[in-house]
Amino acid sequence: MQKIPAPSRRRLVLLERVLASVKTERITSAAISSITGWKDSCIRKDISLIGYKGGVSNGYKAADLRIAICRALGLSSGSGGIEKSGETQECVSVHNCCIVGLGRLGAALLENSIFFETPFRIVAGFDSNVNRTEILSASFPLHPARELEMVIRESEIEYAILAVNDSDAQGMAERLVACGIKGIVNYTGEVLSVPQNVAVENVSPVMALNNISARLMAE
Amino acid sequence: MQKIPAPSRRRLVLLERVLASVKTERITSAAISSITGWKDSCIRKDISLIGYKGGVSNGYKAADLRIAICRALGLSSGSGGIEKSGETQECVSVHNCCIVGLGRLGAALLENSIFFETPFRIVAGFDSNVNRTEILSASFPLHPARELEMVIRESEIEYAILAVNDSDAQGMAERLVACGIKGIVNYTGEVLSVPQNVAVENVSPVMALNNISARLMAE
Repeated sequence: MQKIPAPSRRRLVLLERVLASVKTERITSAAISSITGWKDSCIRKDISLIGYKGGVSNGYKAADLRIAICRALGLSSGSGGIEKSGETQECVSVHNCCIVGLGRLGAALLENSIFFETPFRIVAGFDSNVNRTEILSASFPLHPARELEMVIRESEIEYAILAVNDSDAQGMAERLVACGIKGIVNYTGEVLSVPQNVAVENVSPVMALNNISARLMAE
Repeated sequence: MQKIPAPSRRRLVLLERVLASVKTERITSAAISSITGWKDSCIRKDISLIGYKGGVSNGYKAADLRIAICRALGLSSGSGGIEKSGETQECVSVHNCCIVGLGRLGAALLENSIFFETPFRIVAGFDSNVNRTEILSASFPLHPARELEMVIRESEIEYAILAVNDSDAQGMAERLVACGIKGIVNYTGEVLSVPQNVAVENVSPVMALNNISARLMAE
């Protein structure tokens, strides 16, 4: 399979979510276009990049296309779509994740129903303030930050959701990388400096608003 | 000025944040590379896209480069950097924003110190549950969702941060677009279907983790 450029990859990640909620058996690129706003030709190009050949004049089989995207990008497609397609259930590996920083934003993510039917399982939370780890409740253990290295290694945690204060962000990112974290969802306003092989998604409200402003300015 | 491709634009948005925290007068592309992990040549290419000519062998003037990026992308650079450069203060327009959905996540964003020294001002919050708008406190007014259209028009709100339940996300996005919202920061797990001229940034934890997984798989 050819290398998938980042913009196509990001659209395919969204397309998988669109397909997850499609009610019909088939979906055309025109229908996908009307949902997502992407051009028909762009959608067909993205789909061709994952080597999927199932498109015909009356559209793609939604469940099959979804499985193909999940395979190509290493995503889990949850149980629903897979069973509907009649294929054997996929065994996409589950990724253990942790939340670092349990202030207002981090604590809001403790409601982990949002991770239901995804390949991501939150298995630990950390805060430097021991009071917070004792007061807050979650369906997984909350630890003082000094146990970070030990817990991440023992629980085989791969990804971290970073929601500490901006001033602690870079230092904490370095600790996370040092104990083997491969991806960081960055809710802080800091630009993290991490090695090339660590993936960072910057999702702070200010960064998101900056990206929106810059896109609207460019158009 | 030539059109800036989306990946370059996203890197320049991050670069502006890096420059905002630089302590030295000058910064080389090699130094930027060591912070961000981007290739030297890629950094120089991105900077050339905004038509900035100030690079010399001993680096870019950090404050000047930051102003150039802000001008090109329509970002505000806050007050600090601008005054330091000795130029007259920029008057980048402020964008009024609102938070829609005041559950745990939306309520966490009411702490609006995160928007300090940015061009974004949160001027209203909305929730369909009137109890929540009465119980929660913020430095700006909180309204029942039925007042959404009126308040957005009267307060000239341009951008919305969407943090409602997934099941309400598309319906609420349509209301926001109908009353003129130009950009949506989407903290829900839904893929929003909006017109092409509305910018959406998908920043839910699951979408961010999906993007991380897909990137690591691709490498």
